[in-house]
Amino acid sequence: MEDRPVVIGMIAYDRMTNLDFVGPYDILSRVRQSRTIVLGKSREPIVTDTNYRLLPEMTLAEAPDLDIIFVPGGPGSTALMEDEEVLRFLRERAPKAQWVTSVCTGALVLGAAGLLEGFRAATHWSCMDLLPLFGAIPVNERVVIDGNRATGGGVTAGIDFGLTLIARIWGEDQAKLIQLGTEYNPAPPFNAGSPETAPDILPRFRELSKASAEVRIEAAKRAAGKLHPDV
Amino acid sequence: MEDRPVVIGMIAYDRMTNLDFVGPYDILSRVRQSRTIVLGKSREPIVTDTNYRLLPEMTLAEAPDLDIIFVPGGPGSTALMEDEEVLRFLRERAPKAQWVTSVCTGALVLGAAGLLEGFRAATHWSCMDLLPLFGAIPVNERVVIDGNRATGGGVTAGIDFGLTLIARIWGEDQAKLIQLGTEYNPAPPFNAGSPETAPDILPRFRELSKASAEVRIEAAKRAAGKLHPDV
Repeated sequence: MEDRPVVIGMIAYDRMTNLDFVGPYDILSRVRQSRTIVLGKSREPIVTDTNYRLLPEMTLAEAPDLDIIFVPGGPGSTALMEDEEVLRFLRERAPKAQWVTSVCTGALVLGAAGLLEGFRAATHWSCMDLLPLFGAIPVNERVVIDGNRATGGGVTAGIDFGLTLIARIWGEDQAKLIQLGTEYNPAPPFNAGSPETAPDILPRFRELSKASAEVRIEAAKRAAGKLHPDV
Repeated sequence: MEDRPVVIGMIAYDRMTNLDFVGPYDILSRVRQSRTIVLGKSREPIVTDTNYRLLPEMTLAEAPDLDIIFVPGGPGSTALMEDEEVLRFLRERAPKAQWVTSVCTGALVLGAAGLLEGFRAATHWSCMDLLPLFGAIPVNERVVIDGNRATGGGVTAGIDFGLTLIARIWGEDQAKLIQLGTEYNPAPPFNAGSPETAPDILPRFRELSKASAEVRIEAAKRAAGKLHPDV
């Protein structure tokens, strides 16, 4: 690899899901040759969907050239799909980046920026059917790499995403060292991590998330309409 | 359950590992009947071991009665084992709590506060042999529950820890709903998450962490000596 660190710009925003962000952030930060930066629209504290407050290191405008761009997901991604400042930032920076990446519903934001057209991609299982609105091809895998797009599934997929990306960029041994250090030897107490394995609780989940899902679908349609106003 | 929320005080500190913290925080915060609070020694920003900055919601002194006390791990736990303010807080609050918990090397801090004497416990795999200094019985499991002590293994074990605790307190369906929402259907790209499965990279890991491990061992011995000055 080059001598200079790989600069990873990670966009934080209000009502993002912090675990979407911190999984990849903590994993990627452990690579000695990386430089992770928490980017915000301003330097004001960001409040996640669970009321956790973090401080961006710099603003989008202050960001240096980025080798990797990352967008996490969460309820706040619904607003981000129509946030012209963030979409413009992504459109301007993506062509110069080596990797354009997301976890969870961060993929919908990449999509709204027009950055997933023709690419295979993953997102939260509940939002897979929104990807085609942006010309993306949904793939039911934990981490999807297509060209220089790397997208992870929902929330906790960010850990698998981070390790996969590290293996691609710095090699498998580096990824394995970090997997060992973070003791990533998962043992979920239940087998309810996907709709296929949790049919018994799926109706309740859909009921609880119905209102936010409807708002997200409408926002995605509007954002897609702006991408292709003639469709 | 009772009408009032279960109050969960989560101690954040400099050079903690953020993923140790955010795994349980994000999982536990999704329970509607929980109230998670980020506690700091002051309200100043906390800087994690990966240079991520977060803001405590309140100080230890300001904390209300806590139903659950949680201590994450990370390099900063070495100093915390000898931090009298934090140890005193833990000793005062633990007898009134329903659960006294940790993830990763947070267990060493509970140990230094004298809160694991006679209890079975887990910690990061590299620190298991330090637990007996504090009278704890190391158990090579992802999550260990003994009485009202719940301790998780290293870093990413915090997600399994959170779901396990939720199942105990609020029932399995609540845990499964949150597992589905966070798409916790892990698919590690490698099988290097424990020393048993990663013998090839273990020597390199030990070499890289040798200096910090030595400092931690000395701190643990001093902390244990203060617990039992006559031993």
